Parts: sequence; structure tokens; C-alpha cells
Amino acid sequence: MGERLVVIGGDAGGMGTATAARRGRDDLDIVVLEKTEYVSYSACGIPYLVGGEVGAVDELIARTPQELRDVHRIDVRIRHEAMALDLDRREVEVRDHEHDRTFRVGFDQLVLGMGARPIRPSTPGIDGPGIFGVATLSDGVRLAAQSAARVVVIGAGYIGLEMAEAFLRRGATVTVVERSPEVMRTLDPDMGALVSRAMRRHGVDVRCDTATLGFEPGVVHTSGGDLPADLVVLALGVEPNTALARDAGIALGVRGAVSVDRRQRASVEGVWAAGDCSESYHLVSGRPLHVALGTVATKQARVAGTNIGGGYATFPGVVGTAVSKICDTEVARTGLSEREATRAGFAFHVATIEATTRAGYFPGARPITVKMLSEQRSGRLLGAQLVGEEGAAKRIDVVATALHAGMTVEQMTHLDLSYAPPFSPVWDPVLVAARRSAKLVAGGES
Amino acid sequence: MGERLVVIGGDAGGMGTATAARRGRDDLDIVVLEKTEYVSYSACGIPYLVGGEVGAVDELIARTPQELRDVHRIDVRIRHEAMALDLDRREVEVRDHEHDRTFRVGFDQLVLGMGARPIRPSTPGIDGPGIFGVATLSDGVRLAAQSAARVVVIGAGYIGLEMAEAFLRRGATVTVVERSPEVMRTLDPDMGALVSRAMRRHGVDVRCDTATLGFEPGVVHTSGGDLPADLVVLALGVEPNTALARDAGIALGVRGAVSVDRRQRASVEGVWAAGDCSESYHLVSGRPLHVALGTVATKQARVAGTNIGGGYATFPGVVGTAVSKICDTEVARTGLSEREATRAGFAFHVATIEATTRAGYFPGARPITVKMLSEQRSGRLLGAQLVGEEGAAKRIDVVATALHAGMTVEQMTHLDLSYAPPFSPVWDPVLVAARRSAKLVAGGES
Repeated sequence: MGERLVVIGGDAGGMGTATAARRGRDDLDIVVLEKTEYVSYSACGIPYLVGGEVGAVDELIARTPQELRDVHRIDVRIRHEAMALDLDRREVEVRDHEHDRTFRVGFDQLVLGMGARPIRPSTPGIDGPGIFGVATLSDGVRLAAQSAARVVVIGAGYIGLEMAEAFLRRGATVTVVERSPEVMRTLDPDMGALVSRAMRRHGVDVRCDTATLGFEPGVVHTSGGDLPADLVVLALGVEPNTALARDAGIALGVRGAVSVDRRQRASVEGVWAAGDCSESYHLVSGRPLHVALGTVATKQARVAGTNIGGGYATFPGVVGTAVSKICDTEVARTGLSEREATRAGFAFHVATIEATTRAGYFPGARPITVKMLSEQRSGRLLGAQLVGEEGAAKRIDVVATALHAGMTVEQMTHLDLSYAPPFSPVWDPVLVAARRSAKLVAGGES
Repeated sequence: MGERLVVIGGDAGGMGTATAARRGRDDLDIVVLEKTEYVSYSACGIPYLVGGEVGAVDELIARTPQELRDVHRIDVRIRHEAMALDLDRREVEVRDHEHDRTFRVGFDQLVLGMGARPIRPSTPGIDGPGIFGVATLSDGVRLAAQSAARVVVIGAGYIGLEMAEAFLRRGATVTVVERSPEVMRTLDPDMGALVSRAMRRHGVDVRCDTATLGFEPGVVHTSGGDLPADLVVLALGVEPNTALARDAGIALGVRGAVSVDRRQRASVEGVWAAGDCSESYHLVSGRPLHVALGTVATKQARVAGTNIGGGYATFPGVVGTAVSKICDTEVARTGLSEREATRAGFAFHVATIEATTRAGYFPGARPITVKMLSEQRSGRLLGAQLVGEEGAAKRIDVVATALHAGMTVEQMTHLDLSYAPPFSPVWDPVLVAARRSAKLVAGGES
């Protein structure tokens, strides 16, 4: 019998590692355990399945278990949940929910790809009817089947606001309840306020500074009063799903994510981690962090799988890029926010500029606001946030690339970015923000 | 009397320098000489004025002479043409076309911002009626006033194809004649072929490998036969408009552009150059080149003006970025093409990939082809070209930024670019191209 790789989790982190390992090693016996009934799907597509832009769940599935078996020779077991790890015997205890039985499977190498799980506070009534999470494709399928006139979304992060749009599209009346002073806590409050304003313009009842006190059938009790609700969506963010690893004595790091080295190796020989259950490293702050995003998961999976497959690869880290589109509002961020930069110990300048996505005179020119942070004295770029309309968001990639390169804002002012009237003003909004930032750095203003 | 700055040319290079100099020095006496009747306008907007997306010429004008006089205290003289430079006496001989007189104006510092002039071969009949250039806003205004059922565009570069679209929009039958084997010689022929195909799909009769032999009223004689033409647009590219500088003994460089140092200083003390008449430096090839683009002109102008204004600034150079939209086809390039890389002495890998602009399942996902060049052995990124539809073009900015940073394609594979289904597949097309390139570098394939 050959060497066996057991992978826990069949989405971006786990399955991505499995397929990359297969590319490197033809001889590996690869088993993937997935507790839900879906593998290899786009979790980021769930809001669009619910909203109707995506017509069928199949469209979100990149590869079926059958294809993975036939083409990649990966033994995919859906509805199989890893219950415990025995690292001494190098075995995983598995619950087969389909046939209601428990067994053990041995491994030579193990990949932890359990992903993240939705944060679920112990609010009274949270387990009642009509309250839905939105983490797995199964959740998405369930939500898409609901009909509701009045929807309350708890949590105003990316997923919460995307779900708000989804139910708007379905003709529901939508209220978003957020405990913080502003929506999208990954942005600074001044930029979050632009998003709140846009959401209200789109018809969403946004309630910030509002605590959720309890749920009863048909009603959500909040610190701002009762809200009628036919359906409640919980979108309070996620945390690494790592109880299994913790119980086995595998070292955990930030927020309980599996601690990994640059090659995605966990603290135990032959054990790897990738995706939403794994730690990342922030290239700007120089600190470990937890990121639950498909882009990071696929990159880590490629690195882990390459190494397991006998190659050599390292994952340098992330710069904290994220993007979302809610109705016609585009929101993006990368690097450090003011709060994050302060926490990391930086003294910095803040420049916020308003511009347009195309030449001002060109039809379809839309507003865009760019906020840029740069380190005092050095002028090093620290991060940016932007809120705008069509054509705004993808500009964050220039900032992300400049962060990877460790550029100063002065260096950025010289970037030879593309310009034609249908695409940009002659000074791209990112360059306008860089110019303003460079001026602050040179002038020593704060 | 204070120190006088005379600026020759009132668009991006010249006027941009004048306004930047004013920001630095309040005391300067600034005179701008402009031979046409327009200053401070968007030349890149001309095709959209002709095509009707831009309704009035005023929309293309950033600042009127009156505003420049009142707000910036710049003495703007339109229809004033600089005829000769007397560098010993430090005087410019000026022809006032309005009042039909000639006079001299003295300067302490001089800015050469004469721009570029359209290449105009000595084809028989080229000065006949119905044959138009497209370089200045005056040209644009004249073209916008024409009505023509059959239009022939000579030259299939960016401007030629944008003008083809403009006349398509006006309901004309449009033929483009190009001497080279493919359209858009700034792309490699394989990528140019994608543009040709798209142009034909849009209804343009594209004739490559076709020489223009002569013009007669109503007809263009070509090596492929006669073409009926109510109107002919000459779009054969531009060359630096530097006869004035050459005659005065100012050093010229590549293609006759004014030779400048990093601060935009010409070879004569107190003489500066910026914009389409000035040389640039290519950060990838390490060689001087001539670029006639608004983005480069405004950047050089900012540098020249800052220096004249008593500050310190240098222009590091360009990476050769350009972008265009023709009907729904988006075309972009940066860095070196195969021809340019070969000429610069690089041995390189070529990776060409096809992807989509959004997640494949998301409505509005459009095709995009990315071609990427990377240096053999080092894996250094050398350039990229892309052709696609809505959402494709601006992705070139990531490549441009990576070129500025001197990244390798392997480093690029780790870029934390933004992803959400409405904006990108989980692996952005640029990252897919970088992955393919990195594989070629690692494997030593060519």
C-alpha cells in the first residue's frame, strides 16, 4: 500500500491542497473527508445564488466528487465528518453521516482544511425557527429556497451587506442590524459611513450602534426596538474551525487558527493546514493574522499541495485585500486601516480624495473616494480603502501590489498606470491619493 | 521686473509645467504661447467628441485661458506660435496669428512643450480635400462637423481604431487601412489579431498588409485596390514636434525628442522640456524612448514645474503602459512586447492564458486573454498585453506596478489581489498568467 494523504475539508483549503498534491505526486493515496454534501464550490457565490444572479447551485461547483475521483483520482467522501485526530496512531476518527457509522482512517500526511465557522453568540432564541447562517453551500441552498417579505440581517460586514442586497433583489424589505458605530468594520468609520449612506439609498434600513437582544418567532428584539422578521440571516463573521486540531494538541495561533510556517506546515510533523482554518502573516504589520477569504485559501492550498507533492513553495503572506459589491456600490480595502496601523505601532498620514472612475467628461464617470495611509518620515505606503461605483473597486489591486513591493507613496506618484477616457482620469484616483499622501509626508503634516 | 518663464505649448506638457511652477513660485512672470486656439484640453477625448459620447468641445477643456489668467496668473496667448529660439539673447520669436504680427519675448527660463505632430507621408494627393489629421482639438472640432457615409482611416494604432469606432457610431461605413501585418503595432501580432477580429465583428473593414498609394477626391488608392471615401482620417502616429529646438541647437535624442535629464532639463541651462516633445526613459529596457501620452506628459510636467518652482523632483521613467477601448473591446499593454524585448537583448518566456473578467458563473463574465513575458533564468517580469471585454483593461495596472517594482513572475503569483465574484475569478487573470509564467521559468521551457 502506498503513502496516504488524508484531507479534512473539501473546499478551497482542503480540496485545493489535494489537487495540488496530486499534480506533484501521482502515487499518493488521497482521501478527502467533507462533512457537508458539497465539495469544491465557491462560497463567495452564495449571496448571488440567494439573490438569483446565479440560477442553480451547480454553477457554483467547480468540480463534482465524481470528476475528482475520475480525473484526479481523489477519494472524496461527502457527509463524512472528522470527529477526532489520533496523532500517535496517525488516524482520523470519521463519522459517516450517510450510513450513520463511525470508523478510523490512517494517514501518513494530514491536511487540516476545516475552514471557518460562523460566529454564533448565545443570544436568547438564536436556535429558533427562521434563523439562518450563511457559511456553507448547504446554507445557501436552504436560504435560496426561503421566501420572506421582511428580512433582518444581523451583522454588517461584507457577507451581511451582500445578503441584504440578495434579499432586496427578491423584493423583501431588508433591515441590517450592526452593533458597531458603522458598517464594515474592516474599513475606518469615515469610509464605512459612505457605505451606510449608499445602502440606505439602495433602500436598506441600516441600524448601527444597535445590539441584538433576542429572537422570537417573527420578531428580533434590539436595543433600538423590536423588528418584525419573517427571516433572520446571521452574518456576524467567522472564526477558524479548529476544535479538532486543538483537542489533538496541534498548536494554534491568532484567533485560534492553526499555526503554520511558510510552507503551511503545522506544529506536528506531516500535518499541514490551508485556508480559513489556518493562520496567515500580514506583510505590512509583520504580524500573524487570521483571514477567511477564498483568494488566500487557494494560494495557501497551492503552497501546501506543492510541498506535499514533493516540490518547494512558501507563502509569503497577505496584505489584507478585500472587495465587495453591494448594489451599485463598490467597496475595497487593502493594507492597514487607521485602527490596525495604530495597533501595529505606526505613526501615519491620512489622505482622502474624491475623484471619478473615468474622465470627468466621459459618459458613465462615477464617483470614487480613496483613503490612503502612509507612514510618517519614511513615506511607506500602509494601506488604502475605497468606496465608489462602477469601475472603482479593482483599483485596489494597484495598492495591494505596491504594498507587496514596499513602495513609498512618492514612488507611487510615478506609477505608469493606464489611461484612456473610458477607463480613468489622466491621473488615476490612486495616483491622486498618492500625490496627496506624498505631499503630507514631505510637508510633515499629520 | 521679475524673472520670466516662457512656455511653448499650452496643453499637458507646457501648461502642466506652467501651473506646477506657479504652485512653487508666486513671483514668476509666466507666459504661455499656444499656436492653436485651445489650451489645457484632453487630446485623448477627441475620438469621443467626434463619436458623440462627448457633446461639446467645452467638456474637453480643463481650464480656459481666462481661468488660467485669473486663478493662476498665467499670461496665456492663444494663436501665438513660437517661430524661432535665440538662446544667446534668450528670446523667443513669436508669430501672433490673430493680429498677423511678429515679435520677440525674452525669457529667463524656457519650457519646451510643443507636443508631437502627426506623421504625414508624402503620399500623392495627401493635401487634397476631405483628408483630416487628428492631433489637436481644432482637428477634432473640424472632424466632428463633417458628415460622411464612407470613411477610410489610414493607420490602425490606438487613435486610428478609436476614430473608426467614432465614425461607426455616426453610422458611417468604416474601412481601416494598415501597412503592417496586424493592427496595433504596440502589441505583438498574435494579440493584434484578436483586436482585428473584434474590429471586424464590430463591423469595421480592417485591411492589414495594405499600403496607401494615393488619394484623389472620393477615393483612396491602396495596394489592395481602390476604396471609395467621403472622408479620410490620417492616423499614422506622431513624432516629436522639435524642429524649433533642433534649429536652436538643443540636443535631441530618440526619434528627435528633446533629450532631458531626470529633472526634465534640456541640454541648455534654463531650458526644460515636458510632454510629447520630450524623451522618456524605459524602466524595463533601460533605454531612452519617445512616448506621446497624456499620462506621461502630465507626470513630466509636474516634475519640470516642481523644479522650476524651486522644489526638487525627478521623473524615474515609464514602463510603456497604454490602454484603449474600441466598441466593447478593451486593449492594454505595458512593459516590453516580444519585438521590444528581443531588441533590448532579453531572452524570455511567453505565457498566454484565457480567462474571464468575473467569476465564470457570474452574469457579465467576459473573455480576457493575457500574454505575459518573463526573463529566462531570473524570472523577472518584462511585460504583458491583454485583450478582452468589459472589466479587462485596467488589470494592466497591476502589471505596470509590478514592473516598477522589478518583481519576478513567481513573486507575482502571491499578490493579494482583490476577489469577489462580480469582479474576478478567485485567481485573477493576471495571477493565472503569472502562474503559467512562473512554471515556464522554473521548468526552463521556452
